[in-house]
Amino acid sequence: MDIAILLFENLTALDAVGPYEVLSRVPGARVTFVAAEPGLKRSNGGGLALLAETPLIELSRPEVVVVPGGPGQVEAMADESTLAWLRQVHETTQWTTSVCTGSLVLGAAGLLKGKRATCHWAAIEHLRPLGAIPVSQRVVMDGNVITGAGVASGIDFALAVAAILEGEEVARQIQLQIEYDPSPPFDSGSTETASAETLALVRGRLAPLNEQRREVAERVGRKLGVPQ
Amino acid sequence: MDIAILLFENLTALDAVGPYEVLSRVPGARVTFVAAEPGLKRSNGGGLALLAETPLIELSRPEVVVVPGGPGQVEAMADESTLAWLRQVHETTQWTTSVCTGSLVLGAAGLLKGKRATCHWAAIEHLRPLGAIPVSQRVVMDGNVITGAGVASGIDFALAVAAILEGEEVARQIQLQIEYDPSPPFDSGSTETASAETLALVRGRLAPLNEQRREVAERVGRKLGVPQ
Repeated sequence: MDIAILLFENLTALDAVGPYEVLSRVPGARVTFVAAEPGLKRSNGGGLALLAETPLIELSRPEVVVVPGGPGQVEAMADESTLAWLRQVHETTQWTTSVCTGSLVLGAAGLLKGKRATCHWAAIEHLRPLGAIPVSQRVVMDGNVITGAGVASGIDFALAVAAILEGEEVARQIQLQIEYDPSPPFDSGSTETASAETLALVRGRLAPLNEQRREVAERVGRKLGVPQ
Repeated sequence: MDIAILLFENLTALDAVGPYEVLSRVPGARVTFVAAEPGLKRSNGGGLALLAETPLIELSRPEVVVVPGGPGQVEAMADESTLAWLRQVHETTQWTTSVCTGSLVLGAAGLLKGKRATCHWAAIEHLRPLGAIPVSQRVVMDGNVITGAGVASGIDFALAVAAILEGEEVARQIQLQIEYDPSPPFDSGSTETASAETLALVRGRLAPLNEQRREVAERVGRKLGVPQ
């Protein structure tokens, strides 16, 4: 079973590596990091680079595709070769999936029209101009499209995918192996539990990037024929 | 503030990337991936490679050092240049830290003698031959040494470190930004919550690697003068 994880410049590394750590432990799975242009892809923090070894054209029939997010997703949403590949592989994938703002890339490929989907809390509104129905939930499944919420949700998301692929017992073994027994020292991980001050600060910090996301989502949505 | 994350061949990527995703968001922090031999380091799944850009000798005074684990930690425990660097930087670090079986590497450098520390649940017993006092806890602090439990604990660990470095409010903002509001679909993440069958299966799978760990920990422990 081929699982393709898409990489692009300026991605959020954990969006890709959380799912990798789970899905690479599914018996029989081969995880391949793919990109329109193979090579090293920098994470948004800058200090980390992940290797995309395989060009998109070399992996045309993965059973599962995972699209991570991160600031570079804005450029990925306008990259025709990435969007064309997503549309093509989606015809034969068992599961087409995303983590964080990766769902906006799926949306830009036209794969979320009329579908329920989720995204990072700060960017979830941009699903609508792409024709999707935003759902504030950790993991959302609609048909064979599975979307996960922001960054760290990729682990919850991938355990759910592992259970779908190989059954709950396999997913439980992976959970134990990666000791995923979360115990966050604070309770600020969602917009419901964070204080108003924390929420305002983080929202403010993400505002310029979010403005770009809005523009691109609306422009791409018009191209897809979604009423804006 | 320089934060050095050690990489080596055959590491568990999430051990390094979980903390990276948190610590790279600490204001003023610069995260650098270092290795005895710079270059691409493969994760144990094989499909992922992370770039270690900086040789150890070029980063001699990081404020924080993070050592991840993974199967390759067995070789790292016997790599004299890595151990010498850890001993040297530990003299001036504010915090010397590890995730997962990275604590066995700190132990092999002689930095855990008489100290309370944790490790991946399957390998925690190997701390004792290295002179450490094993503690089954998600994050353990003793002096300026902080150790985290297995793989996914690196996120809990790093949020605790972020709070120590820059205060709880900063850590809470990072938690919200990476949407770390965990919601595991199953409850098998620890030896207490996993079924006896799941535990036996995973323990069995890890047994050959654990035998290597035992041998190396005992051999290195003798060299460190720890009674075996």
